[in-house]
Amino acid sequence: MGRRRASQLLAGYRQFLLGRPTPSSHEQSISGSYWKLNTWRPCCMFRVSVGTPQASNYLNLGKTYAIKQRSFGSAATDIPRNPAFSNLNADDISYFRTILGERNVVEDEDRLSAANVDWMRKYQGSSKLLLLPKSSQEVSKILHHCNSRKLAVVPQGGNTGLVGGSVPVHDEVIINLALMDKIVSLDKINGILVCEGGCILENLSSFLENEGFIMPLDLGAKGSCQIGGNISTNAGGLRFVRYGSLHGTILGLEVVLANGTILDMLGTLRKDNTGYDLKHLFIGSEGSLGIVTKVSILTPPKLMSMNLAFLACKDFTSCQKLLLEAKRALGGVLSAFEFMDSHSMDLVLSHLDGVRSPLPSSLYNFYILVETTGSDETYDKTKLEAFLLRSMEEGLILDGVVAQDINQSSSFWRIREGISEASVKVGAVYKYDLSLPIDQFYGIVEEMRNRLGEAAKVVGYGHLGDGNLHLNIMTTRYDSDILAQIEPYVYEWTSKHKGSISAEHGLGLMKANKIHYSKSPETVQLMVDIKKMLDPNLILNPYKVLPQSCFN
Amino acid sequence: MGRRRASQLLAGYRQFLLGRPTPSSHEQSISGSYWKLNTWRPCCMFRVSVGTPQASNYLNLGKTYAIKQRSFGSAATDIPRNPAFSNLNADDISYFRTILGERNVVEDEDRLSAANVDWMRKYQGSSKLLLLPKSSQEVSKILHHCNSRKLAVVPQGGNTGLVGGSVPVHDEVIINLALMDKIVSLDKINGILVCEGGCILENLSSFLENEGFIMPLDLGAKGSCQIGGNISTNAGGLRFVRYGSLHGTILGLEVVLANGTILDMLGTLRKDNTGYDLKHLFIGSEGSLGIVTKVSILTPPKLMSMNLAFLACKDFTSCQKLLLEAKRALGGVLSAFEFMDSHSMDLVLSHLDGVRSPLPSSLYNFYILVETTGSDETYDKTKLEAFLLRSMEEGLILDGVVAQDINQSSSFWRIREGISEASVKVGAVYKYDLSLPIDQFYGIVEEMRNRLGEAAKVVGYGHLGDGNLHLNIMTTRYDSDILAQIEPYVYEWTSKHKGSISAEHGLGLMKANKIHYSKSPETVQLMVDIKKMLDPNLILNPYKVLPQSCFN
Repeated sequence: MGRRRASQLLAGYRQFLLGRPTPSSHEQSISGSYWKLNTWRPCCMFRVSVGTPQASNYLNLGKTYAIKQRSFGSAATDIPRNPAFSNLNADDISYFRTILGERNVVEDEDRLSAANVDWMRKYQGSSKLLLLPKSSQEVSKILHHCNSRKLAVVPQGGNTGLVGGSVPVHDEVIINLALMDKIVSLDKINGILVCEGGCILENLSSFLENEGFIMPLDLGAKGSCQIGGNISTNAGGLRFVRYGSLHGTILGLEVVLANGTILDMLGTLRKDNTGYDLKHLFIGSEGSLGIVTKVSILTPPKLMSMNLAFLACKDFTSCQKLLLEAKRALGGVLSAFEFMDSHSMDLVLSHLDGVRSPLPSSLYNFYILVETTGSDETYDKTKLEAFLLRSMEEGLILDGVVAQDINQSSSFWRIREGISEASVKVGAVYKYDLSLPIDQFYGIVEEMRNRLGEAAKVVGYGHLGDGNLHLNIMTTRYDSDILAQIEPYVYEWTSKHKGSISAEHGLGLMKANKIHYSKSPETVQLMVDIKKMLDPNLILNPYKVLPQSCFN
Repeated sequence: MGRRRASQLLAGYRQFLLGRPTPSSHEQSISGSYWKLNTWRPCCMFRVSVGTPQASNYLNLGKTYAIKQRSFGSAATDIPRNPAFSNLNADDISYFRTILGERNVVEDEDRLSAANVDWMRKYQGSSKLLLLPKSSQEVSKILHHCNSRKLAVVPQGGNTGLVGGSVPVHDEVIINLALMDKIVSLDKINGILVCEGGCILENLSSFLENEGFIMPLDLGAKGSCQIGGNISTNAGGLRFVRYGSLHGTILGLEVVLANGTILDMLGTLRKDNTGYDLKHLFIGSEGSLGIVTKVSILTPPKLMSMNLAFLACKDFTSCQKLLLEAKRALGGVLSAFEFMDSHSMDLVLSHLDGVRSPLPSSLYNFYILVETTGSDETYDKTKLEAFLLRSMEEGLILDGVVAQDINQSSSFWRIREGISEASVKVGAVYKYDLSLPIDQFYGIVEEMRNRLGEAAKVVGYGHLGDGNLHLNIMTTRYDSDILAQIEPYVYEWTSKHKGSISAEHGLGLMKANKIHYSKSPETVQLMVDIKKMLDPNLILNPYKVLPQSCFN
């Protein structure tokens, strides 16, 4: 790093007090744009990552086979309807009306049409009924009836998932929790929030911020996604590196099982060693074991001081070492450690208007965004400065700048968050969300680049702090030969290196058949046994999470 | 707070660089003394909290009913042997020798005697066989055989539990993992440790400290307890307020099921959303669902700067507010927030030699110990000072001192940790380990004091930062009338206020029948269903965790 740059880095440094400058998506938002919905209805205004004629016929639904995929990420899978399921009849509708009232038993075609498709318009079902319960008891009565009638259901929150988990595959009854959006209590000493499962994440965040707390998770989809859905999908998101997994912050749940049993595990205690901790079964089970109706969650205090540095490294080893140093030096305040390669930077600079590199002198091999969030301006500044100076001296950083105001901070995040948006401008994009051990993190990117040669552009970026790589492979147009070179290779490679084929998005419909790449046969068998025990008629979110072949 | 004291508090402040000054027990060590064992054998050298003639006949075991309790905490429960279990025969022993070799199939009476009793000498079984497997495959073969023969087993780690969970009740085969003590790997970038289940916690800590990391949990029993046992009991311990529950820090497990299946869930990834996260079933299941043979755990960086303040508050409301302020002001570095009432202080001053109050001018109503652990001496000092000054100005603190060296720090901890030891000097002590919502935290102490009047001395102390109260009730001698006034009242009160009757110790044998005070019938039923599914012959750690009546 030259003298001028080092000087700018440290002397030009200025603290800023703000919330996150732009609502960041970090790959939860496909387009990279900020998206926000105020109702449970899926959003149709965003660019999606596909668009060939072959893939866009999602509206031409057959009677028997419902899945039409617009994505190139995985080959389309046509799943036959489970013949054991009943068909909805007039008596069912009447019964639901007696439970929920006229208004909350929805047969209106427009509303059903919106609820039948995911927000990416990638998966589409053909449900004829949307139910909007207002209480756990109503959810219980609905499920009790559906279970006894063998009517399949799909639990739906904000419908913002990326793997087709929250929309019907065929004619499943949709149960949306949008009307269960009440805050039950907040323990202002310990920051323990209790609320209903249909609360929108952003509403919870706003409520808490007024009380001096924040939610331990944050997603690009926060304006639409519901906390019950976040829990059911074990959402990762932006604050993971700081506050960890929901398995650590969820203190209790109320869940309604397939047979209508209301399971009260709604503890508000930090410590409770009385028997098996069953709530964890439902965190990340994607609505296939029960519907989350109430939540108790530990929320951290709101912090006001935020800093952001944009750094360049010569090789991936330096990025690794820098992460280690950042964890040691900034442990208490580190809130993001994002990574992207030169190909990602080049992509953004080439395809997005108005985006400029903060380090314009040359294209470096790797870039890192380091964010700190703390309670003490002076201290946070001192700590970050010391870390950056030391890392420069050790040669881990080649160049870097620290955001001096909110606009600069926004422009730094814009680069990282613009990668997805820029990717789709190339043409077709094949997207993978992988967890990998740190020493293998970048290996698959290089492998794919070598393997595909000139035929494709390969970029690697993601949440290095969490070991979560986003791998995007782009071609000018969809090409099944290219796809055959990518899959199953990318899954096999991930499996061989003990990675996960879904770091934070879940399996849903998209990857239900691919679970064996990340889980042992014995473990999958135990999942199947638990599914059968809790939902013997398999009515809850069928065709998702686990391979259908396990139930035949 | 007077001028002199305020001055001493802030001017006399000096940083010290050290590990924890005394190995702290925080109620994990009954006597309050430091105890440390180098083998898996239970320790016999420590004072326990009981001692009447009625209770001390634990060696006079009957053939049919094996449980003899020395504690007054709960009435003794005699549980008949499950007649479905087989009796061990010569063929079984021969088979185990072929698997494990002569040396690791132990029938020696002295060694069995040690393995049959818990370290408090409160529970005693009559097992005739101790097995010491060296690998997961050996554990698998043992369990496969035991399951097919319906031989009951008790998994045993360091045998340091407090609720009778790790010793046989009758003649169960003891499987101790002491020989499975290998470290498999350490990811030095992310601090992800993989090791075998029999590793002693202190050995892991020592290994990690050399590498710049620490274990996210620490217990008084660390010299003996095994990580597999820690996980099976979901141990809380000293670092909970900082690093949270094992559900947040355990990344993967290998578990052997009752039928011998080796369940490989040994991921080393921070994020993995591929199917149900089954490892959580085994965290805190007290060895009743499987034996933890390998562990993957996220370990935080080692921090060098530690500070300790001893503070006085006028009422419990001030303690609550102080906790809130401490979380806000010290969030990143707060590592302990311990609480004790004036009765606890009085008890320690009256019964322990050489202990003096750091705030000798008068007896205050409540005392708080605040510890910070960080990476930056100057900053940590500044942060603590600012917090203390502000709290004084707000009237939350009446008086206080900050430890100026390691000796003063030790003497502060000695008071908090001496409460248990002082309690037993009164005579009989009835001990309860409760989690309570913060607004009810001290209510049960006052209730019991009012209820029992002059008949008993009641003290309340514990991990206020975690909502974990230790309630000790003392009488000069054991009195069943007093016990009848305490139980089930204390459990009912805890249940009414949505607390937990076991915050960190588990249920084991001692409280298996009391689970309904903290868990709903539907939740207990699901636990029973899961137990029956995973262990249909009920061979794993029988009579523990869940009420026997659920299986009749």
